[in-house]
Amino acid sequence: MSIFLFTDFGASDIYIGQLKAVLLQQAREVPVIDLLHEAPAFSVQASAHLLAALAPQIPPGSVTLAVVDPGVGGTRGAVALNADGRWFAGPDNGLLSVLAARARVCAYWRIIWRPEQLSESFHGRDLFAPITAAIARGEFPAGKAASTTRLGVEFGGTDLGEIIYVDHYGNAFTGLRAQGLPRDTHIVVGGKWLDHARVFSEVSTGDVFWYENSLGLVEIAGNACNAAEKLGLKLGQQVGIGA
Amino acid sequence: MSIFLFTDFGASDIYIGQLKAVLLQQAREVPVIDLLHEAPAFSVQASAHLLAALAPQIPPGSVTLAVVDPGVGGTRGAVALNADGRWFAGPDNGLLSVLAARARVCAYWRIIWRPEQLSESFHGRDLFAPITAAIARGEFPAGKAASTTRLGVEFGGTDLGEIIYVDHYGNAFTGLRAQGLPRDTHIVVGGKWLDHARVFSEVSTGDVFWYENSLGLVEIAGNACNAAEKLGLKLGQQVGIGA
Amino acid sequence: MSIFLFTDFGASDIYIGQLKAVLLQQAREVPVIDLLHEAPAFSVQASAHLLAALAPQIPPGSVTLAVVDPGVGGTRGAVALNADGRWFAGPDNGLLSVLAARARVCAYWRIIWRPEQLSESFHGRDLFAPITAAIARGEFPAGKAASTTRLGVEFGGTDLGEIIYVDHYGNAFTGLRAQGLPRDTHIVVGGKWLDHARVFSEVSTGDVFWYENSLGLVEIAGNACNAAEKLGLKLGQQVGIGA
Repeated sequence: MSIFLFTDFGASDIYIGQLKAVLLQQAREVPVIDLLHEAPAFSVQASAHLLAALAPQIPPGSVTLAVVDPGVGGTRGAVALNADGRWFAGPDNGLLSVLAARARVCAYWRIIWRPEQLSESFHGRDLFAPITAAIARGEFPAGKAASTTRLGVEFGGTDLGEIIYVDHYGNAFTGLRAQGLPRDTHIVVGGKWLDHARVFSEVSTGDVFWYENSLGLVEIAGNACNAAEKLGLKLGQQVGIGA
Repeated sequence: MSIFLFTDFGASDIYIGQLKAVLLQQAREVPVIDLLHEAPAFSVQASAHLLAALAPQIPPGSVTLAVVDPGVGGTRGAVALNADGRWFAGPDNGLLSVLAARARVCAYWRIIWRPEQLSESFHGRDLFAPITAAIARGEFPAGKAASTTRLGVEFGGTDLGEIIYVDHYGNAFTGLRAQGLPRDTHIVVGGKWLDHARVFSEVSTGDVFWYENSLGLVEIAGNACNAAEKLGLKLGQQVGIGA
Repeated sequence: MSIFLFTDFGASDIYIGQLKAVLLQQAREVPVIDLLHEAPAFSVQASAHLLAALAPQIPPGSVTLAVVDPGVGGTRGAVALNADGRWFAGPDNGLLSVLAARARVCAYWRIIWRPEQLSESFHGRDLFAPITAAIARGEFPAGKAASTTRLGVEFGGTDLGEIIYVDHYGNAFTGLRAQGLPRDTHIVVGGKWLDHARVFSEVSTGDVFWYENSLGLVEIAGNACNAAEKLGLKLGQQVGIGA
């Protein structure tokens, strides 16, 4: 068993350490891996597509705490699910819905347990970390959740023609899966038509292109340059498939 | 036993890995958790208030290495203390003094041990990591420290009417504890009077308000916007309680 | 045994979690320490000098995965080496060559093993993590590599008169080792002649100086100010030794 974390809490910020303190106290022997803490903060749908693309990299049998939750403290529910052998726990706001829709087999639970002390703004620490620890200990659902047949918000499993993430090199991930896409396809963003390249070193320094990245997504990248700056790319910007 | 780290060494920088290499060699089986490495670098007092607010989230029985130390290499001493069952080690520059003043029971030791090789600028790695490891192994004070009755610098346990931290969402933590503060109180900063809200989703997108954050502090926050940018808030800026 | 990571993959980005997922699956019991994930991305030589300066901080008997690899997917080879009892694995592009040149004893292997699925752009996850795990398990070379007598790219072991890293305080590391350098030496950068100081608190607030940092390098630093901003220092900028 192992625990993975996927959040928008910030890798350098004050939140993840507190969350890990809870996991340490409630599932001490279980390794914890930071998958990403810079998920797009106010875009649950972009985060959902990014998490779905990452899911195959997560070992089966593990549990992932996933929180991108701008509506924390409001009326959205809390959910846990098992998709093709991988557990996930998080807000029922669509974040888990893309990977669920793409799974071959998926079982859902509505989390009904609430901690004695639940802050209004940090359910990652107070609610989802204890649930994640319970799953890691094999003590779930065990009265903490009720089986259900679907999620409260469902974005569906189809591709998203948007920029969903920009990495620290300035390469822009799209919500388009590259598999099956002919290599002479053009990717269209901000009025520009981009050619395919297999790998960075195939184009000249400073050139921008698209390629299938290591998560299987269409990525807009530059060789030794910042593609997002160069093309003025922004999170949420529309991306199309040209002829 | 577990080890927590609270520093201004930078979460992405070259320092924490070296410090963890020492902990690995001297306390291999003890889990290490990064609480924060972006503590306000040149403000020991703000850091002291932030650490005091975080302390209840740290499990009793653990040891926290705490270093915000602009005077490293100068004449300040080194100290370890046990506050309500939690160990802390760090520079004797006031950093540990707020949590100590708020503890019900606190015992102090002046660290007299020095390593064979002590760099002028990285006592976190050379001095405080070995002391932290010794505490984690249960081999402290054991000739490494002398009991004492007070700290060299004491900021006291009362609230600090300043911005002590700005998180990556742009929300600004104050050194004011929210408990007992009536919800119709106004928080005054930069000439603005801010209303209370229970939670982000209670106000309109782009609105700035104050609320009790998950550490129990008065926090100036915006719903889906960067409050610090919007109001031009800076670390150390004065914050008052209005009528 | 322990695993150290030195890369340019970004401490906050999406890459290290995936790499750690592989290490967890293939060397579960071995602790993993992040040494640095902000190595100079497009400067292999600067990264090589930084890694060589860090190497003595890494415990003997461990293995370090080191990847700064702008040519990934091209023709460069993959290499593992044991330098004075420390293992390293990474691209054969010079990154490991400075520490190798400075080692008393060094043995080299050309990695011939390739995974079933090798992405074009993320050999850190697909190639170097499995090799690192194999070394950690004591199952290397074992048919995965061929002994060799030298590296494909060798920068040599002499000092580099350049800025090789700027930390989050704005202090600039050079590739010059400070040992043996007289303390009345001036360091010359951008036309400025800088004096030596032993430690930050020895100079006035806002003053810039050079000192021997905790890695033994000549560092250009400021007391409670950002030296790199103040002097307009950039990665790769030339640094000289004055009279």
